[in-house]
Amino acid sequence: MKTLLISGAAAALLSFGLISTANADKHAFNDAESAVDYRQKGFSLIRNNFVAMGEMVKGEVDYDAAIFAQRANDLARLSHIPWQGFIVEGAQPGNDTDALPEIWDNWDDFKERAESFISDTQNLAEAAAGGSMDDIKPAFMAAAKNCKGCHDNYKD
Amino acid sequence: MKTLLISGAAAALLSFGLISTANADKHAFNDAESAVDYRQKGFSLIRNNFVAMGEMVKGEVDYDAAIFAQRANDLARLSHIPWQGFIVEGAQPGNDTDALPEIWDNWDDFKERAESFISDTQNLAEAAAGGSMDDIKPAFMAAAKNCKGCHDNYKD
Repeated sequence: MKTLLISGAAAALLSFGLISTANADKHAFNDAESAVDYRQKGFSLIRNNFVAMGEMVKGEVDYDAAIFAQRANDLARLSHIPWQGFIVEGAQPGNDTDALPEIWDNWDDFKERAESFISDTQNLAEAAAGGSMDDIKPAFMAAAKNCKGCHDNYKD
Repeated sequence: MKTLLISGAAAALLSFGLISTANADKHAFNDAESAVDYRQKGFSLIRNNFVAMGEMVKGEVDYDAAIFAQRANDLARLSHIPWQGFIVEGAQPGNDTDALPEIWDNWDDFKERAESFISDTQNLAEAAAGGSMDDIKPAFMAAAKNCKGCHDNYKD
């Protein structure tokens, strides 16, 4: 198996709590292309759920508690998915990606934002289970704020 | 909001436990194209994790407990994702999909297979957390068997 560690990002592999110290020279992907594809598909599924929920939050589509809760649950599950696709040498700008090099220059900040996103989507799923738009709206806005904050800094 | 219920599949909307009786004429997607795209991306992410785990189960790649467990956790999360994309009128053959019409003709069987898959990936994640390939291998094979069973019947 090829060693594909991003040089200088050993801490990054550990900081998501996903890869043990002993195996810091390994990661979950075998090549940059599949890593980019994986994270882009993950974000696409996340966006699909956000758009559908946003239509209900904005009142463009009637609020349906069951559909909203299912979307929020799927979003919470998907919030974990894309980040593995950033921990691969070569899965950086130049590989048909809008990801900016600032991600890897500011890995701790990027990681913190990812963790906030995961946590905020969990809060949204809990609010959605309650079925009240009064609770859902602030939780949705908090989760959505993560998207914009990260895109402003780290997406071309 | 357009009513996009699959005629004859009202029970299907309920049987995944996702949509309340009162709202059985609604679903999570606004159009067939996005539903097909959503489920195909979900399956792609599932396949990516299966392939990576399969390489370790077959010994083609050294078993790494942390990476395997992370893959298994992501698979368990993703196992819930694609099914919503089948519950949309028009998200059937003809819309750039390999999904066979037999899915909608045998919805109860399809639904049971989806639920078995979700359950088997959860078992695999639990086996992976234990870190023993002796436990992982049968759990992996059980989860993988779902893929083949469903593809043989319902994928072109």
